[in-house]
Amino acid sequence: MTKFAMIGAGRIAATHARSFQDIDEAELIIVADPFAEAAQRIAAKTGAKASSDALGAIRNPDVEAVLICSPTATHVDLIRAAVDAGKAVLCEKPVDLDLGLASQLEASVPKDARVMMGFNRRFDPSFAQVNARVQKGELGKLEQVVVISRDPAPQSPEYVKTSGGIFKDMTIHDFDMVRFFLPDIVEVEAMGQNVIDPALIELEDFDGVMVTLRSASGAMATIINSRRAVFGYDQRLEVFGERGMLQAHNQLPTSVRSYGADHAEQTETYLHFFLQRYREAYACELKAFVDTLNGGGSFSPSLSDGVAALRLAVAAMQSARSGRRVEVASV
Amino acid sequence: MTKFAMIGAGRIAATHARSFQDIDEAELIIVADPFAEAAQRIAAKTGAKASSDALGAIRNPDVEAVLICSPTATHVDLIRAAVDAGKAVLCEKPVDLDLGLASQLEASVPKDARVMMGFNRRFDPSFAQVNARVQKGELGKLEQVVVISRDPAPQSPEYVKTSGGIFKDMTIHDFDMVRFFLPDIVEVEAMGQNVIDPALIELEDFDGVMVTLRSASGAMATIINSRRAVFGYDQRLEVFGERGMLQAHNQLPTSVRSYGADHAEQTETYLHFFLQRYREAYACELKAFVDTLNGGGSFSPSLSDGVAALRLAVAAMQSARSGRRVEVASV
Amino acid sequence: MTKFAMIGAGRIAATHARSFQDIDEAELIIVADPFAEAAQRIAAKTGAKASSDALGAIRNPDVEAVLICSPTATHVDLIRAAVDAGKAVLCEKPVDLDLGLASQLEASVPKDARVMMGFNRRFDPSFAQVNARVQKGELGKLEQVVVISRDPAPQSPEYVKTSGGIFKDMTIHDFDMVRFFLPDIVEVEAMGQNVIDPALIELEDFDGVMVTLRSASGAMATIINSRRAVFGYDQRLEVFGERGMLQAHNQLPTSVRSYGADHAEQTETYLHFFLQRYREAYACELKAFVDTLNGGGSFSPSLSDGVAALRLAVAAMQSARSGRRVEVASV
Amino acid sequence: MTKFAMIGAGRIAATHARSFQDIDEAELIIVADPFAEAAQRIAAKTGAKASSDALGAIRNPDVEAVLICSPTATHVDLIRAAVDAGKAVLCEKPVDLDLGLASQLEASVPKDARVMMGFNRRFDPSFAQVNARVQKGELGKLEQVVVISRDPAPQSPEYVKTSGGIFKDMTIHDFDMVRFFLPDIVEVEAMGQNVIDPALIELEDFDGVMVTLRSASGAMATIINSRRAVFGYDQRLEVFGERGMLQAHNQLPTSVRSYGADHAEQTETYLHFFLQRYREAYACELKAFVDTLNGGGSFSPSLSDGVAALRLAVAAMQSARSGRRVEVASV
Repeated sequence: MTKFAMIGAGRIAATHARSFQDIDEAELIIVADPFAEAAQRIAAKTGAKASSDALGAIRNPDVEAVLICSPTATHVDLIRAAVDAGKAVLCEKPVDLDLGLASQLEASVPKDARVMMGFNRRFDPSFAQVNARVQKGELGKLEQVVVISRDPAPQSPEYVKTSGGIFKDMTIHDFDMVRFFLPDIVEVEAMGQNVIDPALIELEDFDGVMVTLRSASGAMATIINSRRAVFGYDQRLEVFGERGMLQAHNQLPTSVRSYGADHAEQTETYLHFFLQRYREAYACELKAFVDTLNGGGSFSPSLSDGVAALRLAVAAMQSARSGRRVEVASV
Repeated sequence: MTKFAMIGAGRIAATHARSFQDIDEAELIIVADPFAEAAQRIAAKTGAKASSDALGAIRNPDVEAVLICSPTATHVDLIRAAVDAGKAVLCEKPVDLDLGLASQLEASVPKDARVMMGFNRRFDPSFAQVNARVQKGELGKLEQVVVISRDPAPQSPEYVKTSGGIFKDMTIHDFDMVRFFLPDIVEVEAMGQNVIDPALIELEDFDGVMVTLRSASGAMATIINSRRAVFGYDQRLEVFGERGMLQAHNQLPTSVRSYGADHAEQTETYLHFFLQRYREAYACELKAFVDTLNGGGSFSPSLSDGVAALRLAVAAMQSARSGRRVEVASV
Repeated sequence: MTKFAMIGAGRIAATHARSFQDIDEAELIIVADPFAEAAQRIAAKTGAKASSDALGAIRNPDVEAVLICSPTATHVDLIRAAVDAGKAVLCEKPVDLDLGLASQLEASVPKDARVMMGFNRRFDPSFAQVNARVQKGELGKLEQVVVISRDPAPQSPEYVKTSGGIFKDMTIHDFDMVRFFLPDIVEVEAMGQNVIDPALIELEDFDGVMVTLRSASGAMATIINSRRAVFGYDQRLEVFGERGMLQAHNQLPTSVRSYGADHAEQTETYLHFFLQRYREAYACELKAFVDTLNGGGSFSPSLSDGVAALRLAVAAMQSARSGRRVEVASV
Repeated sequence: MTKFAMIGAGRIAATHARSFQDIDEAELIIVADPFAEAAQRIAAKTGAKASSDALGAIRNPDVEAVLICSPTATHVDLIRAAVDAGKAVLCEKPVDLDLGLASQLEASVPKDARVMMGFNRRFDPSFAQVNARVQKGELGKLEQVVVISRDPAPQSPEYVKTSGGIFKDMTIHDFDMVRFFLPDIVEVEAMGQNVIDPALIELEDFDGVMVTLRSASGAMATIINSRRAVFGYDQRLEVFGERGMLQAHNQLPTSVRSYGADHAEQTETYLHFFLQRYREAYACELKAFVDTLNGGGSFSPSLSDGVAALRLAVAAMQSARSGRRVEVASV
């Protein structure tokens, strides 16, 4: 029974707390958040102890693993503290908004540090199944990956000011999804647009982007993003190879279809946002982390995967601004 | 090059006339209809000769095959005339509205008479493929057949007065579709409803029916009919067996799907009615008739198939009125 | 916070126990089962007390509501005991296998007894939504209901010996689903088949049935059942009316579709069986029960709904054996 | 009744010849091809006269409109000859493989020359409907266009040697499709890959490309191409805007879906190639040309549209080779 401390008690923390209910091999014993009420709210439902002392929680000798759900700016320090304390870590993405800091962390932790990054979409049952079937060779040689990812409604300009911008707060998930299939991306080309909220122009950010990536294998990938899709959270994957194609389609709240005088086969709009759409993914992610802790093997996605996705975000912004294809190795 | 006379120059005749364009082995040389203008309209587009003399057309020594598209009441006499003249016949369904007359005809024509009944749906590429795959054993033993068949808009009471009623004018296609898979139906159970047009009650007809049929093999079938489906012509087939299921779904005018703030994956309504939905089926039917003429083999669906479907219609009406299961052999 | 006793600690009990985790207004305090180990297993996960004394649990003064998940033969007595003790009851279906006993119970409990029957499918989010939209009038007048319900794999003959047979153990869910839309069924017509397991013939049971029902409103319904569908648990609903149609389709484990040299748009087989397919329905059912307890209103589906579904099962068997349409009022 | 000469008697010519059957207002009177047998084969089925003299056919005083289906290298001269002779022209794409020659032609023909380019996909009923709905404002402001277009099997290196390469022989259709929605493309970014046939590397061509385009409106588009898709001809369109999305999906030969022990909802592979997939589009294109001839209005897509698509092909190749975003105006 692995004992966990959770750092942070916000929305995603609450989702993780729920997931512990279904994992026999893990127990949440401390929830630490400077905002005491939030920590206590989660503690009350789980039997964990609430605390306002993150480092204390990490260093608590009963704690074997640390789940980091605190703001991005704290990730590097908390990962380092946990690794230094000999604890296993599952940290929400991104590692940091600054590629330099993230790379330093990567360089400085021991090779065998037990760190996993919370790219939860890799654990979505549909995306995970596509990946597993590709790994088994069902498609033969992989040739093209298409990721379409659109948010249901735009974030506020305030959010964007601190999020690092669309490539670092939104596309980063898609960069990781591309790397799930094509880990060795060598070139990036990106174009951005401002068609939704003019406020982003001043922030030098985009509200839609299209990114093309090339893998060392010769395969290519495209990512299509928009900050707004009125029909719901649009999350699709298409993996195409010499022997066929696998797709993961959008997911519907129910299986109801309606037919009337002016339409047929109509569904509801899609699940609204990531906490609904990826609820099962969060649970599977935590389970995978616990299974790796207990069963051995390397943690995946790793800290390096976290840094690599961030590097693609930086490369994409360079390309979008310069109009040139960017070599990833040069970033 | 088989030379055809076509008797009748109405809507379905025009459809058949079109199909000749794609069949290299057949030529339409006479179109006969008492309404001269209709015959001439088709003749003008095809190079056929217009005539008002059906029997003359049938007996014309150049004519080798006769396509009967005239009103139902003329079918028995015209089939007999064509068979007597040694001509091959493709006759629109039904054989007749009167089971006695139809049975007499069946009994009186030679066993080797070349007569095919125009149950066009057997030649619809989707239904035909389902049947071919079932014949090849893809589903193992056949267990259940479900036919859902709803018209887009109700016929007028005037039509119903002469059509023979829902079982003989509408369900008869579905009886034949069931028999395409389960030719040996032994029992019929039917229930009818009047929910659309009260005028039908006086005519002792229904505007919706549900029919259950049992095959000698043990398999069962259900037919679901309605005279009105506001979302278009609803034509579905489900064939279920020990090793799986095959379905033929409805067909859409285009492949367009729309997504908006209150819906997703929405299509247009279905193709409106049988001339659109089964256009390709009519062409394939004529081709199959010509191929059998030239290549040999037995004509299918045969005159006996036509009589058998009519017998099921009579049995279903008996059951719907009596509330008892009806043995087909007793009808 | 409503305090619950749960009677029975089998498979469905475990599912219900899980659902308590998500309902803030309810708490499971006792699990009673003669098989102590089963009760303890659930108790350990929930903080409830294990017991082997069902009546004691029901009568425990702390207990306000009773969840009955014990074998069918105990339902009548346990419902009566709980009602007598003034407790609210949520009881798994069916009320009993014997229509007489069930009717006696119905007649003998007070009109305002707080009893809800566990027809969980009414709470499936898809079926529930179809019903809600029909109630709001989206389809206009309801005309036809089609329920297709096939189990993934046949039950053993041993199960069937005590289950009451296909109409009482399987179709009963579909009878209730039809009554969800058409509560006032007046006539039933049924046909059964034996195409899977000949052992059922001796037991005078069927492995596939087709049932047609007529509502007092004039609407009709069809139920299609099979004990075996190799492609998974086949659970579909189609509700058809004057202004359109609503369907609830089957549900897939993931949204993955595959494309290869010999196929396209292929999905996995369906969720295997009811604990997977209706997991969310069980949770919503318990929530609805708790909400009615706290918020008032009548419990639905009621004990009378339970008896009504059983009556349709009896009527259907009479019809299947006699070949006659059966008036429900006569049963 | 507009009288047509058709120049060229190959595969597409045969398709066009068929389409005349359904157009009452047009008549094919001459088919000219240096390969006499091909011309005669089409003539025999249509009643047209066969000829080997293209210019003679164009200048024949009875001919009012010319349908050019001859090899690409002849297009410029034949268009010019027809325009000079005062005839209306429907010419297969592309205008030419050389942007300079095509631009010269564009510059030299009178503004009111009646020339339409055969970008047949604009007339596909699905794509045409998406466009019509977008024009009506259904999506509000257009933001993103995604075109996925994959051939079922690679062309031979021999074909590629004379075709102008993937951008000019394949992507050109997709450039025109993007321009159907976003006519004013200002920037192009492209990446190419060689993953299928290494022979193309020597020819400096690609077998897969991904192209990103920016419109003056701020909207962006992506084109995804591959020379091989084992599951059939993959032709999809997605148009995304502020108020929703419209998609045109792939099209299936039949509506059959199969279910078995290891799969569900499986379809056949897609229609194999363009003559099947776009058969209806060819017919609608010819009809649109005839309707414009008779009804007035400007011919669309125009000769300028043909040149514009070619310009995008040139820009894309520049970008793919240089790794830089290319301004269309600079090409």
